[in-house]
Amino acid sequence: MGSKIGFVGLGIMGNPMAGHLMKAGYEVIGFDLVPEALAEFVSLGGIAASSSQEAAAQCDIFISMVPDSPHVEAVYLGENGVLVGARPDTLLLDMSSISPVMAIKVAKAAAEHGCPMLDAPVSGGQVGAQQATLSIMVGGDPAVYERALPIFEILGKPTYCGPSGAGQTVKACNQIQVAMNFIGLAEALVLGTKAGVDPEIIIKVLSAGYAQTRVMDVRGPRMINDDFEPGFRAAFHYKDLNIIREAARAYGASLPASALAHELFSSMMANGWGNLDHSAVVKVIAMLSNTEFPPKAD
Amino acid sequence: MGSKIGFVGLGIMGNPMAGHLMKAGYEVIGFDLVPEALAEFVSLGGIAASSSQEAAAQCDIFISMVPDSPHVEAVYLGENGVLVGARPDTLLLDMSSISPVMAIKVAKAAAEHGCPMLDAPVSGGQVGAQQATLSIMVGGDPAVYERALPIFEILGKPTYCGPSGAGQTVKACNQIQVAMNFIGLAEALVLGTKAGVDPEIIIKVLSAGYAQTRVMDVRGPRMINDDFEPGFRAAFHYKDLNIIREAARAYGASLPASALAHELFSSMMANGWGNLDHSAVVKVIAMLSNTEFPPKAD
Repeated sequence: MGSKIGFVGLGIMGNPMAGHLMKAGYEVIGFDLVPEALAEFVSLGGIAASSSQEAAAQCDIFISMVPDSPHVEAVYLGENGVLVGARPDTLLLDMSSISPVMAIKVAKAAAEHGCPMLDAPVSGGQVGAQQATLSIMVGGDPAVYERALPIFEILGKPTYCGPSGAGQTVKACNQIQVAMNFIGLAEALVLGTKAGVDPEIIIKVLSAGYAQTRVMDVRGPRMINDDFEPGFRAAFHYKDLNIIREAARAYGASLPASALAHELFSSMMANGWGNLDHSAVVKVIAMLSNTEFPPKAD
Repeated sequence: MGSKIGFVGLGIMGNPMAGHLMKAGYEVIGFDLVPEALAEFVSLGGIAASSSQEAAAQCDIFISMVPDSPHVEAVYLGENGVLVGARPDTLLLDMSSISPVMAIKVAKAAAEHGCPMLDAPVSGGQVGAQQATLSIMVGGDPAVYERALPIFEILGKPTYCGPSGAGQTVKACNQIQVAMNFIGLAEALVLGTKAGVDPEIIIKVLSAGYAQTRVMDVRGPRMINDDFEPGFRAAFHYKDLNIIREAARAYGASLPASALAHELFSSMMANGWGNLDHSAVVKVIAMLSNTEFPPKAD
């Protein structure tokens, strides 16, 4: 196992993750298109590279943590991409949340270059990245998973999900469930408050019984207090719902509720609510119902 | 506080509830249209009446636990209904799950007869009824709630929700959330298994993180094992979704996901799955996707 790790994508997730790797004794060589992100990385003790390709060429392990499928495609398969410069047997770990279809395509190209690759998206958000408690969903060859395990365990709790793409698929499943949990809560709160019931009572009763969800426990009280600070931005969940629709199309799954969730999150984007927490989907349901949530005091 | 309670609706919920009241020292006078239900009630120590009206006329407290809004309307407002024979100040507790609109209508008619009335639907199902751990959502006058509290505390955990109808509204909110939690799980499982991921891994990852729901904890492992024994029958949840749509119409709430849930549960009825647990909504999503859940072994 080498002691040098390349790391591309040094945003609110990538930089704290890179920091944990440094603390664990790895030399981390990083790159980001945003100069401020790269500067912060250097201030954490990282070594700046001038491109993804340069970062990967110097390392035995390379991690990407970028926003979406096209960025992953560019980082690995682009004209000056990682696969052009990487030494054979460089371990490639894409921890971005992207389409399983793209994950499989990039891993196949990596294999042709002699580089083993895993898809390893995470959940747990910025807090999980900072506290090294990310849930990591991993797809790829089991032997490669074993090789990457020490890295993943520095960053959080890995779970092996199956062959290439399976990590992204499980992440997509996770985001379906989280979206539906929020939409159910949104409709419950709007119906209840339109009927004149105190939303605090609705949360209290629902969270104590069969209707309980973790998102209700964490965000329900904040929704009632008109607090939609992210957490996880609606724009990112909208991106994930695009991935879910693409995956559903690719695998022949007909998912009517996910399709509706996609449209409701699309309305969040149209209304300029993309930078709010995803719990703000309650605003869409309130808008449809010609009211506001939380309800205005009399 | 009188020691005689009238009880109408002695099904899988009503009989164990009546049994707890007897054990607490109350004389319970009951009626059910189904002779076998009435016979079981008598075997528990209950006194059989020949009608709802007869049961109510002899008591200071009267409880109804019947299937739906029309049954409640018939029990209280019918030609030979409870309100015709009840003595003024008889405490009326409707513990059925019905439309908030009907709950308000019946409570208003009861008030005109001098009888205080509460809507007090429950969640927790047959097990909650047997173990006296029902969650009881109560709407009506706070003073009347205080008067009924000793009765409710014999049966489970009451929560005061607001004026007449508020108990039914919170129950409707609860059923929206439970339906969406199951539909989210269903779509996650169908997408994941169509992509070739082991459903056990999906449940394991989702339940350990932000996607967790109580219904996933309780029913997820059973769904994977093709175990759709109720629990709570899909036909009852379909009835509740009808109530939700009626309430949404009455209060001017536009609830697209609840409307979709209603249609997916309608498909369960059309396919003869009404007697399965509501978690069997996964069969509808699987059917739409031209597959089966759990997936067939190769």
